[in-house]
Amino acid sequence: MKNNSTQKPRVVIVGGGFAGLYTAKALKDAPVDVTLIDKRNFHLFQPLLYQVATGNISPADISSPLRLVLRHHKNTQVILDEVLDVDPHTKQLILKGHEPISYDMLIVATGVSHFYFGNDHWQTFAPGLKTIEDALEIRRRIYMAFEAAEKETDPEIRQAWLTFVIVGGGPTGVELAGAIAEIAHSSLEGDFRQIDTTATQILLLEGMDRILPPYPPELSVKAQESLTKLGVTVQTKTLVTNVTEEMVTVRQEEQVKNIAAKTILWAAGVKASKMGEVLAQRTGAKLDRAGRVMVEPDLSVVGHPDLFVIGDLANFSHQGDKPLPGVAPVAMQQGEYMAKLIKKRITKEPIEAFYYIDRGSLAVIGQNSAVVNLGFVKLSGFLAWLIWVWAHIYYLIEFDNKLVVMVQWGWNYFTQGRGARLITGEASPSTFVEVEARENKSRPHSVSHQPAVKV
Amino acid sequence: MKNNSTQKPRVVIVGGGFAGLYTAKALKDAPVDVTLIDKRNFHLFQPLLYQVATGNISPADISSPLRLVLRHHKNTQVILDEVLDVDPHTKQLILKGHEPISYDMLIVATGVSHFYFGNDHWQTFAPGLKTIEDALEIRRRIYMAFEAAEKETDPEIRQAWLTFVIVGGGPTGVELAGAIAEIAHSSLEGDFRQIDTTATQILLLEGMDRILPPYPPELSVKAQESLTKLGVTVQTKTLVTNVTEEMVTVRQEEQVKNIAAKTILWAAGVKASKMGEVLAQRTGAKLDRAGRVMVEPDLSVVGHPDLFVIGDLANFSHQGDKPLPGVAPVAMQQGEYMAKLIKKRITKEPIEAFYYIDRGSLAVIGQNSAVVNLGFVKLSGFLAWLIWVWAHIYYLIEFDNKLVVMVQWGWNYFTQGRGARLITGEASPSTFVEVEARENKSRPHSVSHQPAVKV
Repeated sequence: MKNNSTQKPRVVIVGGGFAGLYTAKALKDAPVDVTLIDKRNFHLFQPLLYQVATGNISPADISSPLRLVLRHHKNTQVILDEVLDVDPHTKQLILKGHEPISYDMLIVATGVSHFYFGNDHWQTFAPGLKTIEDALEIRRRIYMAFEAAEKETDPEIRQAWLTFVIVGGGPTGVELAGAIAEIAHSSLEGDFRQIDTTATQILLLEGMDRILPPYPPELSVKAQESLTKLGVTVQTKTLVTNVTEEMVTVRQEEQVKNIAAKTILWAAGVKASKMGEVLAQRTGAKLDRAGRVMVEPDLSVVGHPDLFVIGDLANFSHQGDKPLPGVAPVAMQQGEYMAKLIKKRITKEPIEAFYYIDRGSLAVIGQNSAVVNLGFVKLSGFLAWLIWVWAHIYYLIEFDNKLVVMVQWGWNYFTQGRGARLITGEASPSTFVEVEARENKSRPHSVSHQPAVKV
Repeated sequence: MKNNSTQKPRVVIVGGGFAGLYTAKALKDAPVDVTLIDKRNFHLFQPLLYQVATGNISPADISSPLRLVLRHHKNTQVILDEVLDVDPHTKQLILKGHEPISYDMLIVATGVSHFYFGNDHWQTFAPGLKTIEDALEIRRRIYMAFEAAEKETDPEIRQAWLTFVIVGGGPTGVELAGAIAEIAHSSLEGDFRQIDTTATQILLLEGMDRILPPYPPELSVKAQESLTKLGVTVQTKTLVTNVTEEMVTVRQEEQVKNIAAKTILWAAGVKASKMGEVLAQRTGAKLDRAGRVMVEPDLSVVGHPDLFVIGDLANFSHQGDKPLPGVAPVAMQQGEYMAKLIKKRITKEPIEAFYYIDRGSLAVIGQNSAVVNLGFVKLSGFLAWLIWVWAHIYYLIEFDNKLVVMVQWGWNYFTQGRGARLITGEASPSTFVEVEARENKSRPHSVSHQPAVKV
């Protein structure tokens, strides 16, 4: 391999999400050899993934090929592969389909996946939203539910097909619930002959006493009002105790209730990716309850000054504060910090600890409606929505061809259309697995929000 | 079901391709109850499917939700289901997930699928291009091949990853070969560090003595010249005798040759969908060699004046002529004819036989290059390409949101980009099935072209 023969420090980055990609981008022209390893050949703009799930835009609209983004970084190579193990003593990474790779500095940014509070079998019935494939599966379930309702003659089963439950009132849950309400009440208007899609029930369940818990309380109230106007029923202080193919069981103030619903979506909790555990085993790094790696003020793993964890996989706190949320702005700033640290190491300059500058948080509820917390000002409604649109376009156009998203949005805005609502792929076989009658012995778990505040 | 209680004639259409959808569209406001049944919830603009396969555009860009297209047809309902059987005596259709449906007039337009000349096991190694899923699988294989080559250290295996074989020199084969050449020589330029993508070999194999056999010979020559310029090696009079995961075996003028190639694509032959056989069994209809249903001058099945077959599934000839090709313009004109026939039946007017007006044929080779046969004039090169672009946009905008395709094309044209080149989905398990060593006992089959001349 060409790059291994040079004498420049070898920086290896695992993961091409916001954290990893921003590190690589900021290392352009730095006197290092960069290797970026990812399982996928593209960077995913996750904040808009719910729009793929709801048939608004296409997967490619929010995916940027990693090689394309880094094409002009002559010091950088991309490897499409999976990391199986790391040896911090010989400084080597073990890959699935590639010879071992040596590093001088290693940056791990492999993110998080869904967490079902120990009930992993719920995943079959209540998919979460992290990957393109997740989004297409959710899209398939949403639109298939209306098709099934159209064919169903039993009114009770029909209503179950027209009931959508979203578990988790964080930004993703709020965005999904708002979008499904718009689908039922506006996009599909006039498309069916046997059912009235405006009779669709959309339930948003949240364990805490308000949705969007990381936001100021007044914005939670505004968000709930907007959702209600769209036709979403918000139920707070609601703990999910069981999920099956046909229903959700919840506990509300000591009352246990079954909700018959054929479409259940999960937006309620994350756990660290496998690399967290690998690092804990190999380096003795401490993990938090969600499996995220506790990092030092410079984002390194304790005792391993050349090994860093950034992005959602890292648990980083400003002194005495609670950990930073797993959101894109934190990941981007950590990526840029990493690049700065690496350059200063080479010139042997000191570097101060990482410090996150919070420029605010946004969550969209529906067309013309969002909530925005900029710290010095809190906004909701149309103006907040404009800020949301602007912020997302700003980040999207940083990469390649995202002009198309703007055109699609503009078109959808004026036509209320959802042209990307095609149902593709096969139903995952597990969807049709017969569910054994299961005694509900699991103790109730809090339906917590994703620790996520969107860009 | 609401519609069944009315007294209007019940017209049932099976299949939402060009033939079926154009029938339904032309029946708007006709005094009939229309039911359109399809397995998928969208109409696919198949002439551009190769652009999804090559990462140029997204599936949704060429898919129109059937319900959306027919939303304002108050006499029409869409059912998402699969037809299993038909009883022409009781005039009933048996569906997979719906109660039986009665009809007064039945129109079957379920199209065709790939044909491997009796070697169905080749399908695993050489996928064809008919569905969105096919296109995404081909896209996955094309881009994974470059990724695998980048990691491969054995030069022979690396070259096999950089060898693409397209079987069949009809329009689909020509379009795929041209697009893959552009990917290798232009889109991916500068993206890899270990391989030189311009060393990619693209072979287009055709059994006849020239590519695009249904076109005038001078256009075949022009097309071959353009492909050669793009870096495609065209081999005519070449019969494929075997396909495995690693190679294609061909016979060229009595010489047998193995071509080591990891990516083999099939664009060489079609067979009728299952409904052809069902109709043959239930009505005694005759089928041609490809399984297509022989139809009467009014597109009905002999002895069943209320049962029609149209589109690719029909074998229709003008008196004494060869059968019409399975292309979109034929299907659209047959759909429009069907609607006219149905309306005239109701008013008891006579109708003349179906007659296809050939307005010309087009095939695209690459950016700025196509061949066009308008009968009175034959064109190639840039002007032909402009006509090709214009014709496709004209048909696309008939439906819904296809503005986006134009923007994407414009963007790609000026940037040479392929933003939709994300690799998604899992490798189909069959891809990795171990292939038993197989003696090549099958007799050589002609690598015939698809009987397809594009819009």
